Amino acid sequence: MAKHLVSVLRGTPSWPPPIWLMRQAGRYLPEYRALRARAGDFIALCTTPALAAEATLQPVRRFAMDGAILFSDILILPWALGYGLRFAEGEGPVLPRLEASDIARLDPGRLEAALSPVLEAVGLVRAGLDRDTALIGFAGAPFTVACYMIEGGGSKDHARTRTMAYRQPLDFERLMAVLTEATIASLSLQIAAGAEIVMLFDSWAGVLSPSLFRRFVALPAARIRAALGECFPEIPVIGFPRLAGGLLGMYAEISGVDAVGMDTAADPALVAAEVAAPVALQGNLDPAALLAGGAAMTAEVARIMGALRGRAHVFNLGHGILPETPPTHVAELVSLIRNSADAA
Amino acid sequence: MAKHLVSVLRGTPSWPPPIWLMRQAGRYLPEYRALRARAGDFIALCTTPALAAEATLQPVRRFAMDGAILFSDILILPWALGYGLRFAEGEGPVLPRLEASDIARLDPGRLEAALSPVLEAVGLVRAGLDRDTALIGFAGAPFTVACYMIEGGGSKDHARTRTMAYRQPLDFERLMAVLTEATIASLSLQIAAGAEIVMLFDSWAGVLSPSLFRRFVALPAARIRAALGECFPEIPVIGFPRLAGGLLGMYAEISGVDAVGMDTAADPALVAAEVAAPVALQGNLDPAALLAGGAAMTAEVARIMGALRGRAHVFNLGHGILPETPPTHVAELVSLIRNSADAA
Repeated sequence: MAKHLVSVLRGTPSWPPPIWLMRQAGRYLPEYRALRARAGDFIALCTTPALAAEATLQPVRRFAMDGAILFSDILILPWALGYGLRFAEGEGPVLPRLEASDIARLDPGRLEAALSPVLEAVGLVRAGLDRDTALIGFAGAPFTVACYMIEGGGSKDHARTRTMAYRQPLDFERLMAVLTEATIASLSLQIAAGAEIVMLFDSWAGVLSPSLFRRFVALPAARIRAALGECFPEIPVIGFPRLAGGLLGMYAEISGVDAVGMDTAADPALVAAEVAAPVALQGNLDPAALLAGGAAMTAEVARIMGALRGRAHVFNLGHGILPETPPTHVAELVSLIRNSADAA
Repeated sequence: MAKHLVSVLRGTPSWPPPIWLMRQAGRYLPEYRALRARAGDFIALCTTPALAAEATLQPVRRFAMDGAILFSDILILPWALGYGLRFAEGEGPVLPRLEASDIARLDPGRLEAALSPVLEAVGLVRAGLDRDTALIGFAGAPFTVACYMIEGGGSKDHARTRTMAYRQPLDFERLMAVLTEATIASLSLQIAAGAEIVMLFDSWAGVLSPSLFRRFVALPAARIRAALGECFPEIPVIGFPRLAGGLLGMYAEISGVDAVGMDTAADPALVAAEVAAPVALQGNLDPAALLAGGAAMTAEVARIMGALRGRAHVFNLGHGILPETPPTHVAELVSLIRNSADAA
């Protein structure tokens, strides 16, 4: 029998819904902070099998989540393609600012070897999980990875990326093609190593105009979905084009993903109308409501659960857990969901 | 006869549409950079009548825009309420991080005197405009102003603001009420001084969950719209809840604004279906497409114009002009719109 999370992602409604939380492994947990201090640098934490596996398992051990998501980072992919990356204290990731001439130097040939510690971590996590918890493989979506490479790190408006997409469409398409194929390879390897679900994080999808969104968010997701479907038809794919707004329906239709992640701003009732069943919906409690806890959190949970009655729904946040979140609030949230009396 | 821009904002379709651009006064113009250097500090530029008027008029002189938007800043309102503000070189605005105890110290009594140089600028602009160009008054919407005050400046996720909204709802409501009434006062004074249209900029509306969006974005806009409507029934109000995504229809319905601004990510065809006429639609060319120019810009313009045929539409960007934009591209865009042969 399929695990609860897998079955809902394949389109079967269930009450109460399964739950896991984006960035459930992270700084809000004291055991994570201890592990992070031991690892020294962030890339080392992602690429040392025992440490990445331990970070992945910590929240599952504490909260008995329905899903364990591989502890990783969006930028592990360009790193594995040989693109320079470091994490600067307090300012996030720092990369070279990509020029068109850098694209040919990205090396898919080194991907499998470079990812081997990550795949070893997948194996360790799988061995450490109980029979009810599903392991979710991790990838940044090509557009978001491209954003970090072109901007050389984070950005307020990703203007350099969008301008390149308009001005050098052929270079941009070439970069997207390399990243899309590398994403397919990385997720296939994660599945082969034990991932039972995969999720595509497109954090910056919301900065694009509808025409660029279609080309660089929805179509690459469709290519990834189709390629994985050929080899692994049983593995659900969750797509999370953050801040897609009114374009989420188009994304679901074009991409063919099994489930869409809803960000904090999404109205679940509207999304349920726009994205046809059996596509599952995942989300979308405001991480600030989890941080605040109490009556505000309870009211927001009730609103979301009420809007998605009868729909295949995976409870999650609309964005990652905030570092200041009390772990007790996470325990309360899990208990609130699991004890929902109201049958769908 | 009403000016072209005013008539379209009141709901009358027109072809070709009127055009103006968000941040049309700004760093991409050499004459603005010279003015900015003369003013020294940014607040001085906003609050010295001759300088603010000159910044407002520069792009109208160059491009014969249909609208001139008062050169100002979202943070002039808290500044006028006596809340500390400075602009740090290269890092944007810096304010004290608001605590609940600060709310009672905001002083609406000083607003009119503090805003007098701004109102004098409005009068100078009005005197300097030709008979076809409409003057647009400017205000940050209460939620976005609250964000800057609570975060003490810009923020990646506005987590402190959202957490306060959940945890201290009464304090938050009190702050929103003060800012909403002050916004009504500021816009009323601008109208009395000569503004023929007003626009509410809610730059951070997209970080809110649907329930908070309703309370802190849509309802305050409704209060502002209603209050202005009592005294100035002929003055159109444009609401711009940036990144509202699927919530734009709800915003238009609740707020009662005459026009909604569409951000870059909005699909004009979807918005036209969600927001019922006669509400006018404004936007939404990607500023990066304007920066890139050429065929990419032409294609994006054609897509937007095609989607809004027959609808009351004001051509604009989806966000402010990027500082690297060549002024020649702006001239080309205006000419492209004005020479649109295709009748609606």
